[in-house]
Amino acid sequence: MDLDLSLAAPDLTARLVDIESVSGSEGPLADTIEAALRRLPHLAVHRDGNVVVARTALGRAQRVVLAGHIDTVPVAGNLPSRVQAGLLYGCGSCDMKAGVAVQLRLAALVAEPGRDVTYVFYDCEEIEAERNGLLRLSRGRPELLAGDFAVLMEPTGGVVEGGCQGTMRAEIRAWLGINAIHEAGRILDVLRAYQAREPDVDGLAYHEGLNAVGISGGVAGNVIPDECVVTVNFRFAPDRSAAGAEAHLREVFAGWEVAVTDAAGGARPGLADPAVASFVTAMGGAPRAKLGWTDVARFDALGVPAVNYGPGDPQLAHRADEHVKITAIAECEARMRAWLTA
Amino acid sequence: MDLDLSLAAPDLTARLVDIESVSGSEGPLADTIEAALRRLPHLAVHRDGNVVVARTALGRAQRVVLAGHIDTVPVAGNLPSRVQAGLLYGCGSCDMKAGVAVQLRLAALVAEPGRDVTYVFYDCEEIEAERNGLLRLSRGRPELLAGDFAVLMEPTGGVVEGGCQGTMRAEIRAWLGINAIHEAGRILDVLRAYQAREPDVDGLAYHEGLNAVGISGGVAGNVIPDECVVTVNFRFAPDRSAAGAEAHLREVFAGWEVAVTDAAGGARPGLADPAVASFVTAMGGAPRAKLGWTDVARFDALGVPAVNYGPGDPQLAHRADEHVKITAIAECEARMRAWLTA
Repeated sequence: MDLDLSLAAPDLTARLVDIESVSGSEGPLADTIEAALRRLPHLAVHRDGNVVVARTALGRAQRVVLAGHIDTVPVAGNLPSRVQAGLLYGCGSCDMKAGVAVQLRLAALVAEPGRDVTYVFYDCEEIEAERNGLLRLSRGRPELLAGDFAVLMEPTGGVVEGGCQGTMRAEIRAWLGINAIHEAGRILDVLRAYQAREPDVDGLAYHEGLNAVGISGGVAGNVIPDECVVTVNFRFAPDRSAAGAEAHLREVFAGWEVAVTDAAGGARPGLADPAVASFVTAMGGAPRAKLGWTDVARFDALGVPAVNYGPGDPQLAHRADEHVKITAIAECEARMRAWLTA
Repeated sequence: MDLDLSLAAPDLTARLVDIESVSGSEGPLADTIEAALRRLPHLAVHRDGNVVVARTALGRAQRVVLAGHIDTVPVAGNLPSRVQAGLLYGCGSCDMKAGVAVQLRLAALVAEPGRDVTYVFYDCEEIEAERNGLLRLSRGRPELLAGDFAVLMEPTGGVVEGGCQGTMRAEIRAWLGINAIHEAGRILDVLRAYQAREPDVDGLAYHEGLNAVGISGGVAGNVIPDECVVTVNFRFAPDRSAAGAEAHLREVFAGWEVAVTDAAGGARPGLADPAVASFVTAMGGAPRAKLGWTDVARFDALGVPAVNYGPGDPQLAHRADEHVKITAIAECEARMRAWLTA
C-alpha cells in the first residue's frame, strides 16, 4: 500500500478510509503513513509503536503541533469508501481520516512553514484511555510533543473549538432505607433538580451536564433489594479541575457513598494565547466551546495550548452512514496551508 | 434408606434432613417415603413423578388433605443435621421437613381418623412455579387432591395462618424524557408515595406491599440512556383477584408501559368454613393472615379451603443456620393427632 501525497485531500481521504484501521489494528496504516513521510526530505520521522511523528527543524521561533488519530471505531458494513452527491462515505471518513489527509497534504506541500511543525499520527483514540497512543507518547517521549500551540484535527465542522470539558464517572450507592431502589429515587431526584452551570471560560460558553448513565439494583423477584447503584457522568467545564469536579459531586451527593470510577480533566480554550488567537483569526469565524472531552486535554496537561479544528460534522462520527463533505476537506486544507505558509 | 415411622417426630425430622433433597433431586427421599407408606395397610399409596400421595378410604363424611413439600433450597454447608440446645439444625429442618415428619407420624399412627385423610408429599416447591409438584398433580390428577379442607404444613410457628396474599411481578418501563433513568425517578416517586392497604379479609388483617425489586438502565458510560426498566413486586391481599391486582398496577403506573411478567392469585382464609373453624379451635390460639404467597392458593383454586399450619419459625427458612425447636415438632404432632382422632 503506497500513499501518493500529491493526490487532492478528498482523494487522499478515500485512500486512507480504504486502509482499515480499527483501534488496535492500525499497523498497516501506520506503516503506510510512515513510508510516505519518510520520502519527504524536509521532515525527521519517528516511529513509536503505531504512532508516527514527523517534524520540521527549521529553527523557527515557534512550533505548532498538528495531531490526529488514525484509528476508527469498528467497521459497520461501511467499507470501502464511496462518493455520492458530493459526500465521501466510509468508516472513519469524518472521524477523522479527512483531518489526517489534511495533515499529510500539509506535511508534503509545506516544506518551509513560517512556524516549525510537528505532525503527530497516533493510535487507539477510540478505545480505553490507557491504550491511547498520544497518552503513551506524552509519558514516554514528551519532547516529541513539545510546542507553542497544538491543533487537534478532530471534526469540528470547520469551526475552531476551544479547549474541552472534563469528564468524570462516579457510582452513587444507596443502601440505606427500607428498599434501596426506592431510596435511589432520592438520588434521581437530585439529578432531576440539578441546575447545570453554563460558565463563560476565556470568552467561550461551556455547558456542564450531570446525567445518570446507568442504574442497577435488585437481587431476585421476591427480595427487597439492599443496594442500588446509580452511575453518573459529569461533564464539567474547564474552569474546574478534576479534583474540583469530584469535590462538587461529593457535595451534590452528600449522604451517599460516592466512588469515582474514572476522570479526565478538561482544557481551557486559551484564546488569549497569541498563537491561539492568530490561528483563530486565520481560520475565520467565531470560535466556540468544545463541550465533549478530547485529546486537547493531553496537550493542556503538557502545558501546550490547543484547539480542535477539522473538517466534518462531529455528529456524524461513529455512525454507519458516517460521511464528510468533500468541499470541506479541501477548504480546511487551503486555510491551514495559508496559515502555515504565512 | 429405610425410614422408621415409629421414631419420635424430632428424630424422624433429623432422618429426613439427612436425606438430601434439593429441588429437582427429590427422587431418593420420595422413594424412601413411598416405601415407608406402602408398609401401612390402612393407606392407599399413589406415586406421580416425585409426588407421593397416601389416602385412607374409611368412607368418612369429610376428607382433609395434609400437604407438604419434600424439597429444600440448596445445601449451604448445613448438612448433616445436628442438635444443639434443644434445636435441630440442618438444610430443610424448618422448611419443611419437620412438617413432613409430622405428616408421616400421623399417617403411621392414626389408622382410624375421624375424617378421611389424604397425605400429599410433593416436589419442586422451592423453584419456578411451572415445576411445582402440587401444580402438576392439580392439573393431571385433581381427584387425588379432592377434600373438604386442606392444611399446608409449612412453618408458621405453630399458629394457624389463613389464606395467603397474591403476588405479581411487572416491569414498568420509562423511555420518554431527556434521560430515561431520570424519568424513572418519577416511577420511584410513585413507589415511595404508595400507601399500601391493610384490609381485613374474613376477620384477618392482611398487609399489601408494592416494592421495586429490580432496576436497570444505561447503555455505556458516555451515553444518555433511552430506556430504564423498574421491576416491581406487588403482594396483594386475597380480596383482590390477580386480574384486579393487574388493573390496580396499571392505574398506579398510568402513563408508563406496564408488562406483567408473572402473577399468582392469593387465597381467602375461609375461616367461616366449618371445617376450617373447627381446625382453628382445635389448634388453639388466634389465627393470623399469611402475608406471603404459599401453595394454599392452589387448593383455593381447586375450591378446597386451606390454611397454613406447621412447626418452625418461617423467618428461619432458607438460611444457613436454619433450625427448628424440637419441642415444637412434638407439640404440632400431638395437636394434629388429637384433632384427627377426635
